[in-house]
Amino acid sequence: MASAMLKVAAAGVSRCSAFTLLRSLSTTVPLSQGVPGAVWKLGKLNHIAIAVPDMERATALYRDVLGATVSEKVPLPEHGVYTVFVELGNTKLELLHPLGDKSPISGFLQKNKSGGMHHICIEVDDIKAAVADMKAKNIRTLSTEPRIGAHGKPVMFLHPKDCDGVLVELEEA
Amino acid sequence: MASAMLKVAAAGVSRCSAFTLLRSLSTTVPLSQGVPGAVWKLGKLNHIAIAVPDMERATALYRDVLGATVSEKVPLPEHGVYTVFVELGNTKLELLHPLGDKSPISGFLQKNKSGGMHHICIEVDDIKAAVADMKAKNIRTLSTEPRIGAHGKPVMFLHPKDCDGVLVELEEA
Repeated sequence: MASAMLKVAAAGVSRCSAFTLLRSLSTTVPLSQGVPGAVWKLGKLNHIAIAVPDMERATALYRDVLGATVSEKVPLPEHGVYTVFVELGNTKLELLHPLGDKSPISGFLQKNKSGGMHHICIEVDDIKAAVADMKAKNIRTLSTEPRIGAHGKPVMFLHPKDCDGVLVELEEA
Repeated sequence: MASAMLKVAAAGVSRCSAFTLLRSLSTTVPLSQGVPGAVWKLGKLNHIAIAVPDMERATALYRDVLGATVSEKVPLPEHGVYTVFVELGNTKLELLHPLGDKSPISGFLQKNKSGGMHHICIEVDDIKAAVADMKAKNIRTLSTEPRIGAHGKPVMFLHPKDCDGVLVELEEA
């Protein structure tokens, strides 16, 4: 498996490797939980957002090839994107495609022409307490205060440079 | 939110944007499900793998800042990685860091120096039927046959060029 992965990597595709035995360890190694006594709690993964260069092709992949339940394509001009939701049972994917000339994901797709994973969203029970904790621990956020997001609930994005290159959205569930 | 995102994008960070209203639509728009009569079914998201340049820092982020339950660091020399599992309730993150000179994720981290999302793993109920379907529908796989992976179950990776830039692992659950 590893050799096949390296061949693909050598061909210029960076997002590929195989670690087929990793999950088996998740039930056998000791676990530890941080932030004892914290006034807020991390929740479940709400979604993974994927920016795609061709929404019809991406929708067809998940619906017609992988057999997932998907939503219709929804334009969100105020956010500069089209979106399609892919239901996976325990969480969902959000397919995103630029809408208009000033879409905030256009730059991402220019750098990732085949598309790619854009951000992950994790739920929290108290966004204000979580954000205060982030600031106290020198994790940069992309706005000074939480903003009202989906379902009227506040959200906050953490800076990817402080999260191992991953754009992390926290949403109050 | 969008302007803050664009400023960060302009500073050279590509993985950032905000779509705070997207989830609200998931319960209001019509859904459709593909592959009627298919002999295999897609399951839940098993994990998101994140390649990280500094495992101690990444572990501390999820354990000490975000308060997640994490595993100890486990070396997997046969796969060329260290791994730490982050439990999120409905799914998990797998933090990966290179082990040795020939780690299959070294190339990814050279291209993504801050780290980044490496692959997603989705469960299927019949990997052979799923892979046959992939081949019939011209989705490239990274090996010709499924290989035995975690928990003695077979897995297959789909080519990211055929999956919107996302390396997708299918695992028989």
